[in-house]
Amino acid sequence: MPLNRKVRYGMVGGGPGAFIGGVHRAAAALDGEIELVAGAFSSSAEKSRQQGDALHLDPARVYASWEEMVERERARAEGDRIDFVTIVTPNVSHFAIAKAFIEAGFHVVCDKPMTTTVEDAEELCRLVKRYDTVFGLTHNYTGYPMVKQARELVRQGKLGTLRKVVAEYPQGWLAKAAGINMWRLDPSVAGISSAVGDIGVHAWHLARYVTGLELTALNADLTSFGKGYELEDDANLLVHYDGGARGVIYSSQISVGEENGLRLRVFGTEAGLDWRQEDPNYLHLLYADRASEVYKRGNDYLAPIARHNTRIPFGHPEGFIEAFANIYRNVARTIAARVAGEAPGEFDTDFPTVQDGARGVHFIHRAIDSGRQRDWVDARYAPPT
Amino acid sequence: MPLNRKVRYGMVGGGPGAFIGGVHRAAAALDGEIELVAGAFSSSAEKSRQQGDALHLDPARVYASWEEMVERERARAEGDRIDFVTIVTPNVSHFAIAKAFIEAGFHVVCDKPMTTTVEDAEELCRLVKRYDTVFGLTHNYTGYPMVKQARELVRQGKLGTLRKVVAEYPQGWLAKAAGINMWRLDPSVAGISSAVGDIGVHAWHLARYVTGLELTALNADLTSFGKGYELEDDANLLVHYDGGARGVIYSSQISVGEENGLRLRVFGTEAGLDWRQEDPNYLHLLYADRASEVYKRGNDYLAPIARHNTRIPFGHPEGFIEAFANIYRNVARTIAARVAGEAPGEFDTDFPTVQDGARGVHFIHRAIDSGRQRDWVDARYAPPT
Amino acid sequence: MPLNRKVRYGMVGGGPGAFIGGVHRAAAALDGEIELVAGAFSSSAEKSRQQGDALHLDPARVYASWEEMVERERARAEGDRIDFVTIVTPNVSHFAIAKAFIEAGFHVVCDKPMTTTVEDAEELCRLVKRYDTVFGLTHNYTGYPMVKQARELVRQGKLGTLRKVVAEYPQGWLAKAAGINMWRLDPSVAGISSAVGDIGVHAWHLARYVTGLELTALNADLTSFGKGYELEDDANLLVHYDGGARGVIYSSQISVGEENGLRLRVFGTEAGLDWRQEDPNYLHLLYADRASEVYKRGNDYLAPIARHNTRIPFGHPEGFIEAFANIYRNVARTIAARVAGEAPGEFDTDFPTVQDGARGVHFIHRAIDSGRQRDWVDARYAPPT
Amino acid sequence: MPLNRKVRYGMVGGGPGAFIGGVHRAAAALDGEIELVAGAFSSSAEKSRQQGDALHLDPARVYASWEEMVERERARAEGDRIDFVTIVTPNVSHFAIAKAFIEAGFHVVCDKPMTTTVEDAEELCRLVKRYDTVFGLTHNYTGYPMVKQARELVRQGKLGTLRKVVAEYPQGWLAKAAGINMWRLDPSVAGISSAVGDIGVHAWHLARYVTGLELTALNADLTSFGKGYELEDDANLLVHYDGGARGVIYSSQISVGEENGLRLRVFGTEAGLDWRQEDPNYLHLLYADRASEVYKRGNDYLAPIARHNTRIPFGHPEGFIEAFANIYRNVARTIAARVAGEAPGEFDTDFPTVQDGARGVHFIHRAIDSGRQRDWVDARYAPPT
Repeated sequence: MPLNRKVRYGMVGGGPGAFIGGVHRAAAALDGEIELVAGAFSSSAEKSRQQGDALHLDPARVYASWEEMVERERARAEGDRIDFVTIVTPNVSHFAIAKAFIEAGFHVVCDKPMTTTVEDAEELCRLVKRYDTVFGLTHNYTGYPMVKQARELVRQGKLGTLRKVVAEYPQGWLAKAAGINMWRLDPSVAGISSAVGDIGVHAWHLARYVTGLELTALNADLTSFGKGYELEDDANLLVHYDGGARGVIYSSQISVGEENGLRLRVFGTEAGLDWRQEDPNYLHLLYADRASEVYKRGNDYLAPIARHNTRIPFGHPEGFIEAFANIYRNVARTIAARVAGEAPGEFDTDFPTVQDGARGVHFIHRAIDSGRQRDWVDARYAPPT
Repeated sequence: MPLNRKVRYGMVGGGPGAFIGGVHRAAAALDGEIELVAGAFSSSAEKSRQQGDALHLDPARVYASWEEMVERERARAEGDRIDFVTIVTPNVSHFAIAKAFIEAGFHVVCDKPMTTTVEDAEELCRLVKRYDTVFGLTHNYTGYPMVKQARELVRQGKLGTLRKVVAEYPQGWLAKAAGINMWRLDPSVAGISSAVGDIGVHAWHLARYVTGLELTALNADLTSFGKGYELEDDANLLVHYDGGARGVIYSSQISVGEENGLRLRVFGTEAGLDWRQEDPNYLHLLYADRASEVYKRGNDYLAPIARHNTRIPFGHPEGFIEAFANIYRNVARTIAARVAGEAPGEFDTDFPTVQDGARGVHFIHRAIDSGRQRDWVDARYAPPT
Repeated sequence: MPLNRKVRYGMVGGGPGAFIGGVHRAAAALDGEIELVAGAFSSSAEKSRQQGDALHLDPARVYASWEEMVERERARAEGDRIDFVTIVTPNVSHFAIAKAFIEAGFHVVCDKPMTTTVEDAEELCRLVKRYDTVFGLTHNYTGYPMVKQARELVRQGKLGTLRKVVAEYPQGWLAKAAGINMWRLDPSVAGISSAVGDIGVHAWHLARYVTGLELTALNADLTSFGKGYELEDDANLLVHYDGGARGVIYSSQISVGEENGLRLRVFGTEAGLDWRQEDPNYLHLLYADRASEVYKRGNDYLAPIARHNTRIPFGHPEGFIEAFANIYRNVARTIAARVAGEAPGEFDTDFPTVQDGARGVHFIHRAIDSGRQRDWVDARYAPPT
Repeated sequence: MPLNRKVRYGMVGGGPGAFIGGVHRAAAALDGEIELVAGAFSSSAEKSRQQGDALHLDPARVYASWEEMVERERARAEGDRIDFVTIVTPNVSHFAIAKAFIEAGFHVVCDKPMTTTVEDAEELCRLVKRYDTVFGLTHNYTGYPMVKQARELVRQGKLGTLRKVVAEYPQGWLAKAAGINMWRLDPSVAGISSAVGDIGVHAWHLARYVTGLELTALNADLTSFGKGYELEDDANLLVHYDGGARGVIYSSQISVGEENGLRLRVFGTEAGLDWRQEDPNYLHLLYADRASEVYKRGNDYLAPIARHNTRIPFGHPEGFIEAFANIYRNVARTIAARVAGEAPGEFDTDFPTVQDGARGVHFIHRAIDSGRQRDWVDARYAPPT
């Protein structure tokens, strides 16, 4: 680490009972390189204070609102203020918060989907450029070391020319849900999409991260099976990629009994690969004419970037928090290098960016467009850089 | 068995080197209830004779052509002739052969797809009715006992109202194929489709067999990745079912390293199920609020129809040939009952029929239509009964 | 096949309701090379006749006793009598039946354990030599193609020098059994052992078949958990092999919920292998320094002997009956070659022999001795050849 | 948490490059309830300082030796000093360090095996009692939530009376090792055992934690396959438990390609269970007469103690560090309660104790005794309480 201190951050959102805020904090804490020093944990000042107390924060840095936080942290001396802010609020508020912190000179870690409109997403791209912000988007599933191994194998040409990509993300929690996490189904809070916007976008990003390919066209079949909401809870997409690969992306929140079944299969002219998030330490390589292979996390035979994103030896399972922590560690080291005026390490800039965020928002909107039109739509897109 | 002899059959096709002919013979032989007594194994009289010798058949009943076979077997005394014919020739010839044998008064077992046109398929439906033929189509994957268990669980309402159906059938053999089985890619022999017609139709049939639902609409994305042929080798379909369920059917022959990856997942309001052909002795039930279950072949707790279609105890794996043999045994017992003038057993009529065949041919044609139009098409259909 | 007819056999045992008799018949029938033509299916003449009728046998060749069968079949003209007898009676009667048929000039297929005493086993070895009998013992688990692949990999040195062998065979059926198959627990019928004699001996044979190593010493811990019988239903053995490898063999009939969990793991200086009978189409190779491999049945990259023992393409699961059928096919082809005065094919003599049977009986007795003495015993042995 | 601050600890050992020190720190950091504030990370003062810098510790609390640490921390004001020490040095030094810190009034977290002699272990038991120390031993595998679920199911009687316990722990790293971690093989540093002392003891503890049973007798077969060391690298044990259950414990460091294959299977009169450390989020329940079940981490249907030891929702895999963190969190909360003068929470005292440590050291010695004597030995033991 180029800094002789931990990288410091504050959190917006993540108050009592919020699952994802706890994951962010655990992920940030894991390596001892990052320190939580401030927070506006809730739109309720009281709840924010409670959370700050529970986390043993200095009460002076537990704020009643993110607006207060951005002001008061900016007012602190350089070297004493937070280095970055983590935004884990409902989707609709990401934009305003991110904009304010960027303009105040802070770096940002933001949950996905980045914004609820393409316009906002593009504005963030421009702001990030203008303020030279380090901006990390928590498409955390690409933090898994075996996902990075998969990408390396594609890059090395081991799969040949890519032809077929199957990305699936079935969940079942919504089939029997009663009131939990329901902001995800309220368009005024979550945006225009649920099954695509909440999880399909992860499957989409995982596929493009591993394959290096972008979508050219898609055709979506969207359904809302549940009662009491209008957003789709099931989404099946036909997709075309750059260079001719074809595939399917499907995501579902009503596939009862499925837990968090993100899976990616990629087939090229020479080999195929298969990775499952619920068994993340293993990557399967399939061949036409020889025994298939199982690559296992933590081994010396893996690519350097896979080893870089691993903490413990083979056979000692790493999970979701560790993958999440890889995003944090890479972002934090990039920030630390920035603060120290140094170049980041070779693998430290490997985290999803504001452009990835804009692409994701665009993808979500195109999927919804296609579902409404019941037809193929153009999915090509280039965000501002 | 109502007859005091084995049920007798002759085979058309299945000459030296033909994989599927050998599977049919092994499946028919397995239970000692069916006897191969005649054959026209090849369009080459010499090859037919060779095959007959290898099978230790009476040379007088090894024929130079199926036309000869139908004539000469019809000429034999009742009780001495074959009870049924098995047709395992390339798709394009199924119709003429089946028609001739039906008209000559024989029962029929026929490979899928049943015919290459919907018109021919419908004509077979009418012939089967007119001649009161027992007609079995070898959608063999529904012969697996745990598939029957799956259907029973759906019927019992254990899954609730069905919402999502994912049927997939990836193979990879064609990605590296050089000349093998290439009649499957020649439209003049195979018909208008490869990935759908050869395997997608199995996935479609498996889904409808288990769910009891028929398609109402579909939208197909078809690609021909290989060189030297025009038929599609990859097919991704969005599908709608009766009653509102949605889903995906995909089949592929270029998913390198996949072997015979037929898999079905069905999700209802109460539970989900998951079955894989490559691990066929197990059926997984998934719930929202309790431990998932693994049903295992051969146990007393399974449904009667699952136990009826099983030969050996739990833990002793049954495979593809045994599933195939279930189709044969059920057809043969139905024929035996017919010959004996008795009613067939409760579970003996559980085999794919000529109507299933006509539906399959219609499904294939609608998938190709949709792929060409790049749009949704109506998939509803009722064959002659 | 060197004969221009099927190989003919008769069965002793395998009457109505006997599971293993049906498996033998299905296995023999599978390839169309072997024909059941005679039988003494039960010690009850009436039950024997019923079974013969159900199997559509010529009533003249359905016998009231095995003694009658051996006399009457011997009296038939050469070329008309059975080529071999299959013995599927309870263990204690194997010896007398085998002896009689051998002395009458017939070849033999016999269930394991071959006899209930070492003396009887050795006498069979001598008889087989004297009468030049083809004698096949149905250690059927070594009929699986991936077991043969495993042996080839060991032979090729891919594992290096062998060090550790773990052979396990848990079952649970006896934990809740009430009266079923109870002859297995009656010493006057089954012999001196249950968990070792019924299934442990399969695990032992599987290990030695794959590794090529024989035991030098063993130490057994035997327990009888159930009520109403004295034979052990759980057996844990420490074992030493030729050349210094060590290991464990355990078998259990009270491991509730285990079905037929035979598994073999072998570790050498260079690699390890892992095979499970309940998932028999796959063989796992494990390495210290590269991705592990999954060998899959039916592929061209497998050893010739593995391909020889496979009937259908990859991805189409083969199971227990197919493995059993490999024993039968190899025995039958060896007999056919003998009858025709030819040499058997390269892979046709690959089946367990009378010496393997004698070794098995010796192993069982040494395990019981060790359990009684609560000490290590010498396990070295050489049967008469 | 009863304290309004984090619980503070110092670490002895865990210098640059030490794997397990990093795991301890990550586990302690995960929940934001524990803070590393001091350390004597190496017997080299320079390396200790380097590690302290890398961890951004106050240099005044980075010590050149553990002796210095115990003195200087004791000298700090109450409320400012560390609450507990973590000992992650090679085995032989655990005793002296633990003794010193206990006598200085600190609580202790210690790696296993706790000491290298039974006498030392018993002395620690007495010291812990005398000084009323909170002492946690990192048998971390029992920190997994599904292990706790397994124990609950046993306690609830779901398995009935226990009969068979199979605990296995194969590793392969030593088969090809060259110089890594070699202190584990030096008796003057590691103690008298390797395969038992390093990993077998984990398997032993896991079995007794889940079953609630202690060993009564054991018979060990120990082998040293490698060159350059004398300690055993492979151990196979026959074991007897209280109440009549029998089983096997085997551990191996030369099972090439095995990574960290700890697995426990327990069978009772009613049901069996199966848990694998490399797939730790799932627990399999096996029944004689109904579908087997898969319990999945993070679900509401699990026992309260399993849910207490889980951080994130189902389908988001937790791994080794999270299990380790459960030990830490429980220890830290027990310490926090002690400091605050309150009773610990219902589940907070669920961590391995100094008595568990003494039992483990005794088990290791009895295994070595048995291996040397090549005979059964008494394994009963009661440590000072």
